[in-house]
Amino acid sequence: MSAERVERRLAAILAADVAGYSRLIGLDEAGTLARLNALRRELIDPQVAVHKGRIVKTTGDGILIAFPSVVEAVACALAVQTGMALHTATIPEDRRIEFRVGINTGDVIVEDGDIHGDGVNVAARLEALAESGGICVSAIVHGQVEGRLDCVFEDIGAQSLKNHRPPVQVPDRRPAPGYGARRGCRVQARRGQGASQ
Amino acid sequence: MSAERVERRLAAILAADVAGYSRLIGLDEAGTLARLNALRRELIDPQVAVHKGRIVKTTGDGILIAFPSVVEAVACALAVQTGMALHTATIPEDRRIEFRVGINTGDVIVEDGDIHGDGVNVAARLEALAESGGICVSAIVHGQVEGRLDCVFEDIGAQSLKNHRPPVQVPDRRPAPGYGARRGCRVQARRGQGASQ
Repeated sequence: MSAERVERRLAAILAADVAGYSRLIGLDEAGTLARLNALRRELIDPQVAVHKGRIVKTTGDGILIAFPSVVEAVACALAVQTGMALHTATIPEDRRIEFRVGINTGDVIVEDGDIHGDGVNVAARLEALAESGGICVSAIVHGQVEGRLDCVFEDIGAQSLKNHRPPVQVPDRRPAPGYGARRGCRVQARRGQGASQ
Repeated sequence: MSAERVERRLAAILAADVAGYSRLIGLDEAGTLARLNALRRELIDPQVAVHKGRIVKTTGDGILIAFPSVVEAVACALAVQTGMALHTATIPEDRRIEFRVGINTGDVIVEDGDIHGDGVNVAARLEALAESGGICVSAIVHGQVEGRLDCVFEDIGAQSLKNHRPPVQVPDRRPAPGYGARRGCRVQARRGQGASQ
């Protein structure tokens, strides 16, 4: 229970993966990997740098990024997803690379450059709730960002996140404190000032 | 709306003041200030250092401290309040220095070493809700700390925090996302393993 045993640090955690990665690899392995590398180099890495993020690790189709600010994390995700939409508009739908992004915030445990803990796990679960090309954030992230970035939030209500401790809240109407973390919002950039919703 | 205009950074914000400061100064100005200085030197500053906090500013009876981790901020507050209770046990009640502590977390705006923003304001409001010798935290802090420190939380429900943007939530049973920030918890260190509750 001692706070001294591990290094804890507040971070905004962005987890992303490629929707339908195995299918894309099956269709065109070399081409998909080359396009992913180009997207990293031309879009993702520059945006992560602009928003002061740190790429913690990558897997085949996934990436985990830590930001020192929640607003910067969501701004980065919006920039990448908007950039991706432009990037892939001319590519046949079944060959499009589309990311799903989940963002959470909280104390994480830092160890040899890697990050661990509940806050990271929830980011990964939120990623799985995001639509292709979309962003899903926790209610805590929503509360930090609303009114500070030009985007809209769609409340998707209380979510059951599997293997999650503390035990998942049922979506009743008397939330326990801390319940907010398990509430999700989908996020979209506003498109033009006159756009409705 | 650009995220680049200001430097935002996640922090746990601890705001504390001395309960009944004017009364104590009225009773014994020099003695109260000398005792406050001794408490800073012997108790507060060492605990802030151990928990990696940074003292942002002090006012006559107040102090604002930023921590890089929520768990560290609450651990520091518990250590200080426990230390204070030992320190003041032999002092007549009307001359006791007692702190009220509020803790919140979120993105803050960093400018010339000072911190600003909603997250800071909420910490100050929570401080005002704390009892003398007590700690009051936001629901977001509670969610981050529960199970990670040896303390108990008492839910004090949704709180109306004046001058607060976004408009203060009425405590209905259908919380909007982000509502959690306006929910408070009082925190107490557990006293001995056999203690009930």
